[in-house]
Amino acid sequence: MASISTRCAFLFFKRCQIARGRQTLNVARRKMSIKILDIGTPIVALSDARRFISDCMVAVGTPREYGDILAENLIEADYRGHYSHGMNRLDMYVRDVQGGLCDPKAAPCIIKETPATAWVNGNNGLGAVVGIYCMDLAIEKAKKSGIGMVVVKESNHYGIAGKYSLQAMEQGLLGMSFTNTSPLMAPTRAKGSALGTNPLSLGAPAANGDSFVLDMATTAVAVGKIEIQKRKHEPIPEGWAQDESGNITMDAHVAYDAKRLMPLGGPELNSGYKGYGLGVLVEIFCGMLGGSAYGPNIRKWGDSSKKADLGQCFIAIDPGCFAPGFPERLSDFMGFLRNMEPADPAKPVLVPGDPERLHMASVDEAGGVRYVQDQLDTCKSLAESLKVKPLIPT
Amino acid sequence: MASISTRCAFLFFKRCQIARGRQTLNVARRKMSIKILDIGTPIVALSDARRFISDCMVAVGTPREYGDILAENLIEADYRGHYSHGMNRLDMYVRDVQGGLCDPKAAPCIIKETPATAWVNGNNGLGAVVGIYCMDLAIEKAKKSGIGMVVVKESNHYGIAGKYSLQAMEQGLLGMSFTNTSPLMAPTRAKGSALGTNPLSLGAPAANGDSFVLDMATTAVAVGKIEIQKRKHEPIPEGWAQDESGNITMDAHVAYDAKRLMPLGGPELNSGYKGYGLGVLVEIFCGMLGGSAYGPNIRKWGDSSKKADLGQCFIAIDPGCFAPGFPERLSDFMGFLRNMEPADPAKPVLVPGDPERLHMASVDEAGGVRYVQDQLDTCKSLAESLKVKPLIPT
Repeated sequence: MASISTRCAFLFFKRCQIARGRQTLNVARRKMSIKILDIGTPIVALSDARRFISDCMVAVGTPREYGDILAENLIEADYRGHYSHGMNRLDMYVRDVQGGLCDPKAAPCIIKETPATAWVNGNNGLGAVVGIYCMDLAIEKAKKSGIGMVVVKESNHYGIAGKYSLQAMEQGLLGMSFTNTSPLMAPTRAKGSALGTNPLSLGAPAANGDSFVLDMATTAVAVGKIEIQKRKHEPIPEGWAQDESGNITMDAHVAYDAKRLMPLGGPELNSGYKGYGLGVLVEIFCGMLGGSAYGPNIRKWGDSSKKADLGQCFIAIDPGCFAPGFPERLSDFMGFLRNMEPADPAKPVLVPGDPERLHMASVDEAGGVRYVQDQLDTCKSLAESLKVKPLIPT
Repeated sequence: MASISTRCAFLFFKRCQIARGRQTLNVARRKMSIKILDIGTPIVALSDARRFISDCMVAVGTPREYGDILAENLIEADYRGHYSHGMNRLDMYVRDVQGGLCDPKAAPCIIKETPATAWVNGNNGLGAVVGIYCMDLAIEKAKKSGIGMVVVKESNHYGIAGKYSLQAMEQGLLGMSFTNTSPLMAPTRAKGSALGTNPLSLGAPAANGDSFVLDMATTAVAVGKIEIQKRKHEPIPEGWAQDESGNITMDAHVAYDAKRLMPLGGPELNSGYKGYGLGVLVEIFCGMLGGSAYGPNIRKWGDSSKKADLGQCFIAIDPGCFAPGFPERLSDFMGFLRNMEPADPAKPVLVPGDPERLHMASVDEAGGVRYVQDQLDTCKSLAESLKVKPLIPT
């Protein structure tokens, strides 16, 4: 939410929300595109970025259909501004397939089901392929029963959790998704880590194409934010991470090496145990219900010695089964929130999903995404080693 | 979670978890009962506390059956150590009934349903009566369909959210509940408040009678914690509350008067926007889906000029629809967490539900709960004004 925070972008976005006029929106987009994307590297069209990902995956034995699904998943993350989960992850997926840790041809299958639930085996396929299958199943069940809940075992990293909420929202439904991940969070009071960043997402459709999209890790921050402070040689705020002895640290270098993230809330005094509880909640919906690896049994981040065997959960809900007028009520409520008086006039009140909308508008305006040089270098190496047509900047 | 924190209680509790023997458990209970309950006021048996609540409610026109349901609800809160939601709330319920704001005779009814969902009208009945009805309905649907989701409008305060999770757990199911509440939380960046403390709960049954019970407000803390600091003339930690201008305050007096709680996570830098997002998530499941009052439209806390018209949501899930062995996996995982090396040897790692277990053991050992004098005075006044047999300490 804080990744895009220029004064003019937010103020113009605020005007968009109030005016909702095409002209105002376009002015906002132009202003933002200057602020956000003018960093001096070439622009890559989304279509070419997708093509490149799919080509790379096909080169290591992935069926084209599945390569396209993964490409769509990763580029959605970049488009929404979540660069850590986009093109940045491609070489990891390629390595997992090359190392035999993930089967790029595998299709998920249902183990057992009711009209409203299903337990699925991901068969160690690509997480994006497994995820889209499971959410489709949850959607189908929600359309018949009002709610559908699908839990999968033997899955792999599935990208941004919000992707599956969006999938349900395209059908006019509420969507939720959860995944367990490699252990990085230290439970409240513990020295070591035992839970992942364990994200959860809820998406809900409002009126006139507006929407609420919450997509959050249950840790205070992701490792990437600590890495940025480390590079700048700046301290981290109290409440982000612990050192190896389990004490709160504000040293970014110590925090990065220890990899003991604190749960949302930070220290116990500030209710960090609630974030820890939410991390366990996600694990209950994933590893506990799904029968996959869980908690400390999940392979460490970067471990290439064993399969991920992740558990994931997908829920779709038909708002039509409850009080009529859901999208209108949600729009009214979000409008109220966005129009609240801010403590700092330069920082208007947003709702979850707004920062991503800002980023998408800027990408649309620029005609593509602008990757950092390090990312472009990785793509170049991948293109060469896999003998794939390289990314073509516009 | 932090309310019970004596060194001996936790160390003995830890021994209970490892040994699981009756003898060790009893020693732990004795030690804890001395620490927790030895505060010099008389002990009230749970049965008499329940009788008193039911008598008071019957005296203002509540059917005995409903009075008993409310009594069971409030005393469950006291038994678990959540005194703010127990006997402490009785005079509020009495006043709401006397003032015609809540109909103590009203029974909830189904407006529409599918095999897995229901939309219910609480008909402005007692929240505890509405809640038990809705969770029973969710349980019935989960037993047939694998999952049941029930959303209600026109409800009233329903006590601790965890009560309904426990109700589902008694049937071997996972239970969740959510309620919107009077506006007290300031959204990230906003000056004023627009959301309640909006609690959520998940309960899940483990093996051998063990369980996970998360019951948390989506604000960093409840107003009660600020009140305690105010009485002690001590500051509050950064991240609990804002002043009237929307700035973070550490002055307990200022925070108490402003009533602008910060969301879980605290300031934006520490990801408070995630707690804010979770507060909206609860509102989506309650007011948005249910068609009740929502967000800033809910009456202010203490307002006796209009009905509460709260929205609530109840979900029951049958773990048998997914991977076999759910309770055993959950026990294994919770055992791992409890046995993690703590940063401070005096503070063992707990899982959600453990602090309540400690408190219940101490109440069992003492033979009842020990209310503060102020609470006993309120009960005496109620007994006199309603012409009800007073509480009889043992």
